[in-house]
Amino acid sequence: MKILITSGGTTEKIDDVRGITNHSTGYLGKEIAELFLAKGHQVTLVTVKTAVKPEPKENLKITEITNVDSLLKSMEPLVKEHDVLIHSMAISDYTPIYMTDFTELEDTENPSQLLHKSNTESKISSASDYQVLFLKKTPKIISLVKQWNPNIQLVGFKLLANVSKEDLFKAARASLKRNQANIIVANDLGEITPNQHIAYLVDEKGEEMVTTKSAIAQALYERICYD
Amino acid sequence: MKILITSGGTTEKIDDVRGITNHSTGYLGKEIAELFLAKGHQVTLVTVKTAVKPEPKENLKITEITNVDSLLKSMEPLVKEHDVLIHSMAISDYTPIYMTDFTELEDTENPSQLLHKSNTESKISSASDYQVLFLKKTPKIISLVKQWNPNIQLVGFKLLANVSKEDLFKAARASLKRNQANIIVANDLGEITPNQHIAYLVDEKGEEMVTTKSAIAQALYERICYD
Repeated sequence: MKILITSGGTTEKIDDVRGITNHSTGYLGKEIAELFLAKGHQVTLVTVKTAVKPEPKENLKITEITNVDSLLKSMEPLVKEHDVLIHSMAISDYTPIYMTDFTELEDTENPSQLLHKSNTESKISSASDYQVLFLKKTPKIISLVKQWNPNIQLVGFKLLANVSKEDLFKAARASLKRNQANIIVANDLGEITPNQHIAYLVDEKGEEMVTTKSAIAQALYERICYD
Repeated sequence: MKILITSGGTTEKIDDVRGITNHSTGYLGKEIAELFLAKGHQVTLVTVKTAVKPEPKENLKITEITNVDSLLKSMEPLVKEHDVLIHSMAISDYTPIYMTDFTELEDTENPSQLLHKSNTESKISSASDYQVLFLKKTPKIISLVKQWNPNIQLVGFKLLANVSKEDLFKAARASLKRNQANIIVANDLGEITPNQHIAYLVDEKGEEMVTTKSAIAQALYERICYD
């Protein structure tokens, strides 16, 4: 099968020196990619420069992206030509519109005017004590996947922080339905440490708990290839 | 001599999954560290997890920091026990205070009230179309160096973007004076490419132009050890 995996975290530029980054090492995506490669599948990994990656292999293609916009452009053709998407990348949900001195906000009667401004300088000045950054929502790529390829098996991820199991599963099921995903891997930041990665494979039938990155990879492999 | 070098870029957390990052690969700091190590000096490199680093060596100590606050805490004792500081790290000049829906800003009579709020959640919700992030200035570590150790030789960096040479040198001389630095390495983002790194060693007497990272390292070595 042709397996498409995303890993790492995107960065949205504020200017040429600063950006808003979603932190993700890429270890989980690497582990999943290596398992599918070892089983003889063809893997395309869409990731970022700073993420850890598998060693080069004949069956492995790697595409590097930077921000949500470049991810969106890369994904559409790739989704159309793969059988499975395992979408573990940490994607920026907001992107900068305009950064300015706090005084400009104070001097503006209607703050929504500032949503239409943009920075022209390559490095925004850093003279004032307080600054304000306006951001807008990025497109949700996962919601477009089944439009691009209705036959792809879609595995999404839902990361929350310090919530109850009930709320975590509820959010995962909402994502499952909204994005027509086959599985949502639900996890909580509070349960991820260097030696442990508790996650729940959530589908319409129930939740399967696993406790390490390699167990997540193994469980996904079994669901995708044998269910 | 005991040489303290900073490299890479700091990240200021927005929440547990997002941060504002100053981009810097760490290659310049690595090059400078390797030259001083090769000449038999003792080097302490203060850097970040994602930066490139020299191979482990007996004369090399590496300290990893994350944000401006952790850098500040690490630097004070280190500055006191070194002869030279080459401060090439890209440091966040602003740190997040509070992130909220744009509607909260619209509903607030006096926006400065929002500068006193803070987020309690580990992952800020991403429901609204627009968000606004308030930031405050971080302390300028370079301005504290000569207070901590009046005898240290201080090399600072000034990075601007697409400015005239005149403005670049003016900014470098202002930093030289303000921070009682011995040399400011002035450079312009528009003149840095993978194969070229144009920089000017600016002091009270003049400007010396160099064109690669290894030439920057060599010129700094000569100034520090033979001037």
